Parts: sequence; structure tokens; C-alpha cells
Amino acid sequence: MADISAEEIFEEFREHSIAEFFKKNRQMLGYSGMVRSLVTVVHEYVTNSLDATEEAGILPDIYVAVTQIADSRYKVHVMDNGPGIPRNFIGKALATILAGTKFHRYVQLRGQQGIGAAGCTLFAQITTGKPILVKSGTGKGKAYTCHVAINTAGNKPLITGIAEVDENFRGLSVEGEFAEVKYEKSEHGIYEYLKRTALSNPHAQIKFKDPTGEEFVFLRSVDRMPPTPKPVKAHPLGLGVNDLLEFAHVSQSRKISSFLVDTFTRVTSNKVAELKEIAKSVDFDREPKQLQWHEAEELIKAIRQVKWIAPDASAIIPIGEAQVKVTLKNILNPEFMSVVERKPKVFRGGIPFIIEAAVAWGGNSGYKTESGYTGSILRYANRVPLLFDAGNCAITEAAKEIQWKRYNIDFENQAVSVFVNLSSVHIPYAGVGKEAISKEPEIIEEIKLAIMDAARGVQNYVRGKQTVNFETGRYKSTMRYAKPLAQDLSYLSGAEQKEIEKDLEKLVAKHYPHIKNAKVAEETSGESGSPAEGAEE
Amino acid sequence: MADISAEEIFEEFREHSIAEFFKKNRQMLGYSGMVRSLVTVVHEYVTNSLDATEEAGILPDIYVAVTQIADSRYKVHVMDNGPGIPRNFIGKALATILAGTKFHRYVQLRGQQGIGAAGCTLFAQITTGKPILVKSGTGKGKAYTCHVAINTAGNKPLITGIAEVDENFRGLSVEGEFAEVKYEKSEHGIYEYLKRTALSNPHAQIKFKDPTGEEFVFLRSVDRMPPTPKPVKAHPLGLGVNDLLEFAHVSQSRKISSFLVDTFTRVTSNKVAELKEIAKSVDFDREPKQLQWHEAEELIKAIRQVKWIAPDASAIIPIGEAQVKVTLKNILNPEFMSVVERKPKVFRGGIPFIIEAAVAWGGNSGYKTESGYTGSILRYANRVPLLFDAGNCAITEAAKEIQWKRYNIDFENQAVSVFVNLSSVHIPYAGVGKEAISKEPEIIEEIKLAIMDAARGVQNYVRGKQTVNFETGRYKSTMRYAKPLAQDLSYLSGAEQKEIEKDLEKLVAKHYPHIKNAKVAEETSGESGSPAEGAEE
Repeated sequence: MADISAEEIFEEFREHSIAEFFKKNRQMLGYSGMVRSLVTVVHEYVTNSLDATEEAGILPDIYVAVTQIADSRYKVHVMDNGPGIPRNFIGKALATILAGTKFHRYVQLRGQQGIGAAGCTLFAQITTGKPILVKSGTGKGKAYTCHVAINTAGNKPLITGIAEVDENFRGLSVEGEFAEVKYEKSEHGIYEYLKRTALSNPHAQIKFKDPTGEEFVFLRSVDRMPPTPKPVKAHPLGLGVNDLLEFAHVSQSRKISSFLVDTFTRVTSNKVAELKEIAKSVDFDREPKQLQWHEAEELIKAIRQVKWIAPDASAIIPIGEAQVKVTLKNILNPEFMSVVERKPKVFRGGIPFIIEAAVAWGGNSGYKTESGYTGSILRYANRVPLLFDAGNCAITEAAKEIQWKRYNIDFENQAVSVFVNLSSVHIPYAGVGKEAISKEPEIIEEIKLAIMDAARGVQNYVRGKQTVNFETGRYKSTMRYAKPLAQDLSYLSGAEQKEIEKDLEKLVAKHYPHIKNAKVAEETSGESGSPAEGAEE
Repeated sequence: MADISAEEIFEEFREHSIAEFFKKNRQMLGYSGMVRSLVTVVHEYVTNSLDATEEAGILPDIYVAVTQIADSRYKVHVMDNGPGIPRNFIGKALATILAGTKFHRYVQLRGQQGIGAAGCTLFAQITTGKPILVKSGTGKGKAYTCHVAINTAGNKPLITGIAEVDENFRGLSVEGEFAEVKYEKSEHGIYEYLKRTALSNPHAQIKFKDPTGEEFVFLRSVDRMPPTPKPVKAHPLGLGVNDLLEFAHVSQSRKISSFLVDTFTRVTSNKVAELKEIAKSVDFDREPKQLQWHEAEELIKAIRQVKWIAPDASAIIPIGEAQVKVTLKNILNPEFMSVVERKPKVFRGGIPFIIEAAVAWGGNSGYKTESGYTGSILRYANRVPLLFDAGNCAITEAAKEIQWKRYNIDFENQAVSVFVNLSSVHIPYAGVGKEAISKEPEIIEEIKLAIMDAARGVQNYVRGKQTVNFETGRYKSTMRYAKPLAQDLSYLSGAEQKEIEKDLEKLVAKHYPHIKNAKVAEETSGESGSPAEGAEE
């Protein structure tokens, strides 16, 4: 009956490397669209520079230059003053996908996958055939240079032309040539990306030379390093059965009881005693290497019945309220804003995170549309601005679910911006390209609460403003009759018209207490539209 | 100055496998959210079954059973009548990420990455610790069973308990236990997924047993296999420099000239002669293995200057207009619909694709909202329904960009649905989870044209309907005065009131030619709202 047998079909069976996979699916790494692709390159290198300097305790100086070489073809040069990359790791770090220092640790760094920089190397290679030119030095003695490329079939680095240079260079410099890209000074462009990065990383200084040769400097505004991110132990509530088993099977502890105390945060011998009471069939004196799935399952069930202190969030470093305000003032210069930093929460049971949110009103908030304004959303994850894939992001989802009218805000039709930064030791990105946060219910919920907090802060201001607008409108309408009325009254009573007008003004003003200077309001009345009706409801 | 040296930081350097990566980032495979995760499992197995049967030329019979085991814990069983998987490939096929028969070929299959089924194995393993129970047979003689799991550190299969069974079984049966999942009979649930799959694959029969034990059969409606998808050669316009080099370096052809003719579609010796005229510095008599980057670059430039016949789209099999109509009738039962199949187009220069689009109006089209209806979008890629990540998808983007008012459609407030199916030998998915199509400009543009075509088809109907509504309203308003007027005229003239009423009715009806039976329209006038004002503009 079958035309073709399984054997024939499976003649075509192949294994392929992750590098080959991303070569064919580069859009998944953020390399789709000419403008976006160029931003992705800069984004990957700059986040790596910020992470490296932060880990080394160095105030970052980052230089970014983008030069046009031909139509749709640009050179990108990123240089930092970080610790550099040791020569024996350079190939792995820049030309092996899924290799790095961050993946297996719970530590709040911007990169976390070991894909970014190797992805840039791959992208250069498939669009221009050129390797990445690297220079690295520790500032002590000599630096070295080399070219790196990827052997995609094996996902292995190809290093050529390695040479020592007699230069007291400290840091890492990477230079690559990319085609099928385009520089644009738009809201989704490199300039905007770097500006937003600088604003959320006030300890960093970023210089940028654009393709026209113009130089921009985003100055360091804080001369102090943010606290160094520290790796944290996993919290018991964040574990699945499989995680627990994997930790147990590589543990050096002698007993399951000591393994639990040694490996996880918040586990004390008292807590182990509580667990023993519940997970009766587990022998806590056995070696952790011997732990079986059904025992681990029982342990996890027990863990979920015990009361735990929340995970230690000291390793999570938010931007901070003051800095968020500076950031928003710089980006949006709003008429009013309200900034909220929430307490640490956890998702998936035990991964801690902190949400910062702000709502900004007026000024350059929102987007301009043909007929006025509409609301905008500024998304950050671990201080990295997210410019793409907004529709796929937990932050967008949360903002959409807010019932804005409750806060006297018409999000669709007003100059309003929402800012959200998610800080965590593990950001659950929706895709490999790290441009959106996965829609985890706990994260969406917490973002909503944060935005609602911030919206409440803006509400009174907006309501007040709307009241003023409303009263100004009424006041103006009423005062239109003051002059003719004064004239008539003057004619009837013989009193001075000016005097009557003044008295009428006072009388009317009494009814509109929110108008500070009713006279002035009237004098500038020619300028704009109608008051917001019904604002007092 | 630096606190920590590069050496210290790089002590933490590790390589990790793609299986470890997805274990930590399972949301990227579609395993986020309890309902979605369960749908993802079914989706992966069912698409594999459809592909396998299609490749083997077998009319698919697919059985899906979902059984609840405990809170948030379900067993999924999927069985097909396909060619099965040979014993020596079973571990690779179901428990090695990035291995499969499809990745390296240009052939229109639903799967294409070699990730899906291995992802299911991984998901079962990390949530319940259980391997997947497999049975496979060719229908001739004996079948075999085994358990498969993944060694995540090495991305290697672990096969246990392999045994022959004395059963004349043909096909593949997979059974897995999954936790952190939930069954829901919602628009984004398994029932809906299978229903939509059956409708776009009328040659398939799908049985589904839901967790309550209820059985549903989506009957086969076409007893003929769709044309078998055939691998196609790449089109020269779809090549990058890097692609050309890679093809050249593995070519068995003796000369670059014959390599071009042998390897790509639409390249004839005449075309090679044209290329020679342009790419003067390339020696076409040299071995393809010797081809250098700068020569390949020159060749690609030459290729882009020559006129080519469009890629052969015979290997692309759309659903077909008749079947799309059946599909939509079944899902939406619309009052009116317009279906469009566009001609083949290419993206990224040379990857052929075909868009089918439809706009359906009335019936169960659109979503019900509190106050009425809003438009909905049904997305398909190679006949597979896409239920998640709509915000990230080229189809959604295209639908949003349509100026619906031009087609007399108010997409936000009417019962209208847009259907789009993208068929291609390579679907550029936005993410590894394959739930959205990357926003490639050429694809968005073509989808827009297709939707606009379909919208034009609906426009006349909607306009007609609106005219009828409009005239009905006017007619009703006018006729309100007919009775009193007839009374007055009867009183003044002495004529019979009924007669005058009838004459008046005729007189008024003449002015509203779109109302077929004006009298009836009046009689049922109690039911609903006002006519759409201004519909005639």
C-alpha cells in the first residue's frame, strides 16, 4: 500500500549542528529585516561589554562605530575597557554557539545564553564571508589580535592570524563586516538603542560614531559601579523533580539531608526536619547520588507543603527609582510621571524577579499619530532595552490588560508612556533573539500590579488637569456673556461697566475653584480645543 | 583597577548542549502556559504523523487520546498508520534535538527543524521523569516497542527495554506522560487544533478521545492523497554568496559551469553563457571546489543581473480554493465569503511560496465581544493551524495593515474573519516553537495583496447588505407616516383608507429598489437596531 518505505525515507536522515540550524533560521536570532539586523549586532556586542565590565568591577567605556562600506553593507566596531577574553577562550566565546560563562549560573547578567556574539560571527560570515577581527588585552603587557569564524558543520571556531601586539590595550575590540543590513536613525535604530541603554546604565559611558561620521557621547552620570551581580543558590520552590535529581546526582554531599542544606537557599536543618515529617518514605541518610525519581517527587511535594522564606533577592539589582526618573526625563521629558519599584516576587515557584514600572504623562510621552497621540510602551529586561517583537512580550500583554479608564487615562488617544524593567537572575525570553519576555502568568500579573500602582500616581494629576480643563471651558463659556451682560446692566443701573465686569468675573470664578488664575485662563483662551467633558463623573 | 581578572571570569566557561539549552528555555519550544504546553505536544506528534504518511503515500488515520492522571498531569497517546521509524533511527528521531529527515531538503513538509518530537521527549522527562513509550511497525511481520529518553548533557538518545512484539502493526505509536499541563476545550485547545487540522487536511482521518472519555471523529472527506511534496532544487535568485560557496564545495561536478546547471533550477547552458559575459574574472572551467568568496560574490552579482524564469512552484501544494471553502464553512459557517489563491511568489530572492486567503462575513465569523463582534484571524502554515503568538506573525501584521474601511468592512466591530495559509518549501518561522511566521517584507506584502483581493470579493456583498439595511431603515421611517396620511386622505377624499395605504406603499417602495419584499421588511421591523447610516457615502 505504501509507496515509499520507512527505510527509503530515513535515507535522508541527518543530524545537524546548532550553527547550521541558525544559519538557516537566522531570523530566530534577530537577523530579519535590514535595520533590525544591524541593531541586533550592536545589541549583542554592547550587552557583552556591559556584562564583562560589570563582572570585573570596571566602569564601562564603550565605543561603537558603524561605517557604511557599500549599499546594504556596513562595518560595525565595538570596543570596551573590560577584562578582555583569554586567548585560549576566544574561539569558544565568539565562535561557538551555546558556550559561555553565564548559562549555568543564576546570576543577573544581560546575556545568558552563550549565543549572541557567536551569532554575530555567523551573520558576518553568511552575508560577507568575512571573519571577525578581534583584539584583546588585559592592560598588562601585550595584547593579541586574531580573526575568528565558525565551522558551521561542527559548530567549532576557526581562528586565523593570531598575533601579539605591543600595545598596552585593556579590553575587547571586535570588528565585523555585515551585509543585508541598513542604518536608520529611527525609533528602532542603533542611536535610540544606545541612548536607552545609556540611560538605564548610568555608570556606563557610550560613544557612538554613526555612518555620517557624526559622534555622540552618552556621558556617564554616576561614577559608582552598581552592586556586582552575585550568583545565587536556587530556591527550593523553584525546583522541578528533574532539577532536584540533577542537583542530587552531581552533589558531593554525603547525605540527602546535608545536600539539601548545602545546595539550596533557605534550607536549614530545621526545614529538613520538617521535610522528613512529610516525605516519610525518603531515606535522608542515603547518598544524594542514589536519589530516585519517585523519591525526588515525594521531596518536591513535601517542599511545596512547607513554609519558606522568600528567595534572597539581594542578588537582583533594579535600576532604582531615582535613575528611572532621570531615564524617563531624558527620553520623554514628561509633564508628570509616577515611578514604582515593587518588592521581589518569584516565578515558576522560585526564580526571583523585581519589576519597576512608571507611567509618564504629557511632554514627549506616547506616539504622535495623524490625529493626536497614542500610548507607547518602553520595555527593558535587566536594563537592556527591548526594541522588537513587542506583540510577543509579557510587558505589552500586561499593559494591554490594564483598564486604563479607571485611572482617567485614555491609553489609545493620549500622550502617555508606560515604562517597565524586569530584573531577574533568569529572564524567560520568548525567543532566542531575546527581544520579548515570555508570557509567564506570574510575571504578567506582577507587571500589571506595578503599572496599576504607577497609574494611580498619575491619576490624580490627570484628573486634576481634566478638572481644570473642564472648569476652564465652563468658565470661558460663562464669561462670554459677562461683557454684554455688564453692558446691559451698566445701561440699566448707570453703574460703571468695567466695575460690573470685574464683579461678575469674581462671582463666576468662585464656582470654578480649580482655576488658579481665571483671568489668565481667559486671556489665553484662543489657543486650543474643547475641555474634556464628563471628567468629573 | 579591575577587581576580577578575565581568567577568573573564564573559570566559569562552559559549553552546553542544545538539549540543555531548551531544558532551561522550554518556553521557546512552545512549552509555556499549561494549556498551550499540552497543545504543543499534540501538535508536534500530529504534524509528524501527517508528514510521514504523506511522504509514504498513505492516507493518514491518526488517533489522539488525552487522559488525565492527576492534577496538572496528563498522558498523551498519538498513533498513526504511517511507515513507522526503523529501529536504528528511533533514538535519533525522537530523542536527539536537531536530527531529522527534513532539515536539509527544500521540500514542503510541516515539520522542518528536527526539534519537535525530541522536544516532547524532553518535556515529558523534565516534568514527569518518564520516557516516551514507542511502538513502531511496517505492517510486515513484527513490530517493536521501546522507551526513549534524552541524555541532555550530550543531546544523545537513551533507549531502554527494546522488545519485539508479534503484531502486524503498521505505523508509529507514541505515549508520554506530561505534567504542568492542562486540558481545556477552548479556542486555543487541542479539540480546536485537531478540528482545524482535519479541515485543512481533508485526506486525513483524525480520531480524538478527550479526558472525559468522549470520542470525536473528524472524518476523511477526500479519498485521494494530495500530490506528494517533492524536494526542489534551489533557485539561483535565492542564493547568498555563502550558500553558493557551500554548494560548490560539496559539488561532484567537474567545472563551475556544469556545477551551476546541475545544482540549481532554471540554470541552462545559455544562462551560464550570459553569466560568463558578466562575471568576467571567474574561470568557469575550474573545479567548483576551488571557488573563492570574491568569485562567488561576482557570480551572485551576475546572477542578479540576468533574467530568470520564476522558481518551479509545482512542488508547492496549497489547500485549494474548493477545500478552503469547505474548511471555512465548517469552522465559521459564514453568510458570505471570498476565497483567493494567489500565484507563486518568492521571498529572499528565490524561495517560492503561495498564499491563499479568504475573508468570511457573518455567521460565526469574528469573535463575540460584550458589545457585539470583532474581527478574527485564522492562520495556517503548510496546512498546519497556528494558534499562538499571533502578535508576532506576518499574517497578523498584514491583516492589521489593511485599510478595511475601503472595503466597507469595520474589522474592529464586525463579525468578520480573515483566513490565510502560507505554503512553502521553507517556512521562515519567527521562533523555534513554530507558532508564527517571521515578518519578511515580501511575505507580508503578498499576504496583504491576497487579503485585499478577498476583501474586494466581500465588499460588494457587504455594501449591498448595508444598502438594504439603509433602505430598509428609510422605508420603515417613511412608512410610519403612511397610515395616518392614508387616514387623513381618506377623510378628505372619501376614498377607501386601505386602498390609499396600498398605493402609498407601492409609491414608497419604488424609491428603495434593494428591498426585495418591502412589506415583509416592515413586518419584521421590531427586531433590531438602526440601519447603517452613511453606507452609501
